[in-house]
Amino acid sequence: MSEAPSEPGFMLPERKARIDAVVAQRTRTLTVVMEAFADPQNTNAVLRTAESFGVQEVHVVVGPQKRYDRNKKISQNADKWLEVVRWKDTASCLAALKARGFRIYATHLGEGSADLAGLSFAEPVALVFGNEHEGVSAEAQRLADACFAIPMRGFSQSLNVSVAAAICLARAVERREVERGRHGDLPPAELEALRVKFYALSVNQRARVAKAARAAERKAGKGWG
Amino acid sequence: MSEAPSEPGFMLPERKARIDAVVAQRTRTLTVVMEAFADPQNTNAVLRTAESFGVQEVHVVVGPQKRYDRNKKISQNADKWLEVVRWKDTASCLAALKARGFRIYATHLGEGSADLAGLSFAEPVALVFGNEHEGVSAEAQRLADACFAIPMRGFSQSLNVSVAAAICLARAVERREVERGRHGDLPPAELEALRVKFYALSVNQRARVAKAARAAERKAGKGWG
Repeated sequence: MSEAPSEPGFMLPERKARIDAVVAQRTRTLTVVMEAFADPQNTNAVLRTAESFGVQEVHVVVGPQKRYDRNKKISQNADKWLEVVRWKDTASCLAALKARGFRIYATHLGEGSADLAGLSFAEPVALVFGNEHEGVSAEAQRLADACFAIPMRGFSQSLNVSVAAAICLARAVERREVERGRHGDLPPAELEALRVKFYALSVNQRARVAKAARAAERKAGKGWG
Repeated sequence: MSEAPSEPGFMLPERKARIDAVVAQRTRTLTVVMEAFADPQNTNAVLRTAESFGVQEVHVVVGPQKRYDRNKKISQNADKWLEVVRWKDTASCLAALKARGFRIYATHLGEGSADLAGLSFAEPVALVFGNEHEGVSAEAQRLADACFAIPMRGFSQSLNVSVAAAICLARAVERREVERGRHGDLPPAELEALRVKFYALSVNQRARVAKAARAAERKAGKGWG
């Protein structure tokens, strides 16, 4: 901390370079839809994974569970750097994504389900993950362009949903690089807007850290006085 | 339940077929080493994923945390179908695996670390995952044939360890099918021994379920009397 300038508006060149590198890897043509998750831990875990893979926009269809419970420890503050869009119902969410040109792939093992390995990621894709107990809704299955599953080789009938999401996102990124030539693909104007937003978030974070440090110093000073 | 014969020694043909299919996908030439995990939830989650991917043998190096706490809900009873080998220290565990011909790949981001996508799975491989806070030990890094990382594209510095393990296992299975021609590869004698063991486990499970059902019936009978 001692070498960092104290002006909150100042940003170290390394921090700027880091933000620029992250923004270059960001995309809005791959997204995740979490449908009525029961466990907010799973929502937070998926947000953290999505952030790690450069997925800028994530959709949450609210279920009967308690309100999306932001958990810093599990999400690792990932949602700070993401756009989390909340929807009241699946139909509105998927209709909006379809209108924007997304292909909808729902995780569901049934007759005619595809294997994850066989999915194309040449077009924009929204991956839909269902409730931990019920799976994706009948509505999501009906509205999806394809249903797919990760092949299970053991006695376990399913993977934890945050584990499944991670496997699917890793696969999607790999295939996008082959089929689209790259993963990060924000148009120049969006890229610039996001860069500016992240600079501001980063500076605000520095200001909060500095304020907390000064408060701690004052408190320590009082203790000695 | 009404159509299932009541002899506990009997096994439905579908159940036998399912066990045979699982055993055909089992391997002991891909394994996972969990080094001193702090959170038993992560151990249980990795066991469940390993089971789903046909990894029959898993190694746990015991850390300073509380004893491996079997959690049925998270592991989904996966450890029942696995061989979980416990070790007091990393050196013994990795030496034993090396002596059996395993290549040791440790998850560690450092100078000279490989990308997961560049690893070869032509030989038997042990994937080492470190403690959630400390990462893999210096000893594991030293003893490993290679250190590797999953490329991070966002601000998050790391993935949850159970998420990372799932991504690595999915990749390993995919590469094994390309580089070795198949994933499940137990020699005939081991395959037969495991089939017999799983039949027995399955029958015992049926017997326990039947016993619980009879007890519940007796209890219900009393209630009405």
